[in-house]
Amino acid sequence: MSKYVFGVDVGGTTVKMGFFDNEGVVLEKWEIPTRTQNGGENILPDIAKSILNTMDEKGISKEDVIGVGIGVPGPVDGNGVVYKAVNLGWGVFNIAETLTGLLGIPAKAGNDANVAALGEMWKGGGQGYRSLVAVTLGTGIGGGVIIDGKLLTGYKGAGGEIGHVHIMDDEPEACGCGGHGCLEQYGSATGVVRLANRILAATEEDSVLRNGDVSAKSVFDAVKAGDKVAIQIATQFGEILGKGLAIIASVLNPEIFVIGGGVSKAGEILFEYIKPAYQKYVFPGSAETEFALATLGNDAGIYGAAKLVL
Amino acid sequence: MSKYVFGVDVGGTTVKMGFFDNEGVVLEKWEIPTRTQNGGENILPDIAKSILNTMDEKGISKEDVIGVGIGVPGPVDGNGVVYKAVNLGWGVFNIAETLTGLLGIPAKAGNDANVAALGEMWKGGGQGYRSLVAVTLGTGIGGGVIIDGKLLTGYKGAGGEIGHVHIMDDEPEACGCGGHGCLEQYGSATGVVRLANRILAATEEDSVLRNGDVSAKSVFDAVKAGDKVAIQIATQFGEILGKGLAIIASVLNPEIFVIGGGVSKAGEILFEYIKPAYQKYVFPGSAETEFALATLGNDAGIYGAAKLVL
Repeated sequence: MSKYVFGVDVGGTTVKMGFFDNEGVVLEKWEIPTRTQNGGENILPDIAKSILNTMDEKGISKEDVIGVGIGVPGPVDGNGVVYKAVNLGWGVFNIAETLTGLLGIPAKAGNDANVAALGEMWKGGGQGYRSLVAVTLGTGIGGGVIIDGKLLTGYKGAGGEIGHVHIMDDEPEACGCGGHGCLEQYGSATGVVRLANRILAATEEDSVLRNGDVSAKSVFDAVKAGDKVAIQIATQFGEILGKGLAIIASVLNPEIFVIGGGVSKAGEILFEYIKPAYQKYVFPGSAETEFALATLGNDAGIYGAAKLVL
Repeated sequence: MSKYVFGVDVGGTTVKMGFFDNEGVVLEKWEIPTRTQNGGENILPDIAKSILNTMDEKGISKEDVIGVGIGVPGPVDGNGVVYKAVNLGWGVFNIAETLTGLLGIPAKAGNDANVAALGEMWKGGGQGYRSLVAVTLGTGIGGGVIIDGKLLTGYKGAGGEIGHVHIMDDEPEACGCGGHGCLEQYGSATGVVRLANRILAATEEDSVLRNGDVSAKSVFDAVKAGDKVAIQIATQFGEILGKGLAIIASVLNPEIFVIGGGVSKAGEILFEYIKPAYQKYVFPGSAETEFALATLGNDAGIYGAAKLVL
């Protein structure tokens, strides 16, 4: 009986890999470099080689492996087709079929943020929930939408792109997507810094933030210390992000939002700033949607990838 | 072998009913009044009686009926539980179970806008698509989201409430939901009139709209006649609605938007005003999402209700 699963999370510089039993207990974790040269042609062969080596070392046959799940930074549809992954140099092709061919083991593929959402539902902050939106507040905002336990990939793999919900008119700076006024321009780690710099420039008021690096961490540390300017920044951050999540809830009516990524390291205090705006803007039918912190950190991707094939 | 289906669409004043074969051909349509007195206690018994009478007249046994589908104006979850339907006087109860009990025939229930979306996918403007958002531009804006052929009901039946996506800050008037600045305050038939009155008040420019009733119909008739003020109104309407649909697409990445309701009677000209704003605000991965007009009109509800049980 097959009893093992591999979960793979491909990033722009490293590939995280996990070897799991069929209950989702991680037995081993390791990383390999992501070789993006030549259109990223080595990435999948490198992954296949690393998996086959691991199986060899452990004396595991292909029959012992249920499958391999993989998350990648780009839009992936329900059949495992990626529609360009710029950071990897990839164009359009079927990842799942290619990896299955290289391994002789069934493989499934998904977008990294979507797959991380699956991980948080399975073993993280969303355990016990079947309908959730995972929100990763990192350099940008990643989103993963799960409905009745199933990932919403979108027609062309662009489902759950909640970082690009338009939230602000008249934004002069462009978002990475080319738009102006996307949610991630204010609600991500980079977004907190943008808001901080604008507020610091607009006021003369003293703040500890004037004496060092401005980062999402330093802003929320200052909030906890009672710094008035930092509180003003957090209030604006919460107003925008809370409004964005309210808009998303009016479309999806999820059971819970699971908030992860670097900004979420600030902890439960985030919710003090997000929830009032959420309640102000949300359709009453979604007023009871819960909020929780993600708990798997950088491992959400390998857990979710493993879950893809279970 | 069971070969018939009933589709029921409950409105605040009349209940529309349809008798279908198992291919979705409507064999008969009729209406009965909606008796909302005493907490709407007669509505389901009236419907059951009308269905049983019809079966009796036609000499059809319960074994000949696959099931009865019903759409109601309120949030309904995936199990058929309604969470209040204010216009019917209903509180929280399981519609599907109650109707099954009254009929001795399997019944399923859904929200009316969601059910209408199912109808448009099955026999209307969304035929051949599996992932669509139906947008009904009526007194308000109703929404129905279908993912991979399945309705997104939401955790508490409040999925697809796209009329209540927050789209405008600083709106002084309240929406029916209690919020301020909801999409339906600008994109519905009522919304077009709101925008028209504001623009007419803000300009001195001559317009045919100053000589009669201002309605969604008169505005778009004037647009077609080249009336400059009407074109300004349509432009603002399209900017707001296109932005709203772009936001929704960033979350769902649907294959198509199917636009129905009274405002959609203006025809394809609507898209000339909606699409430029949609393209301006949408995440590039959803730029290819299509637009079509709904085709079933007021019958979308009975078709979709029938489809619920097929």
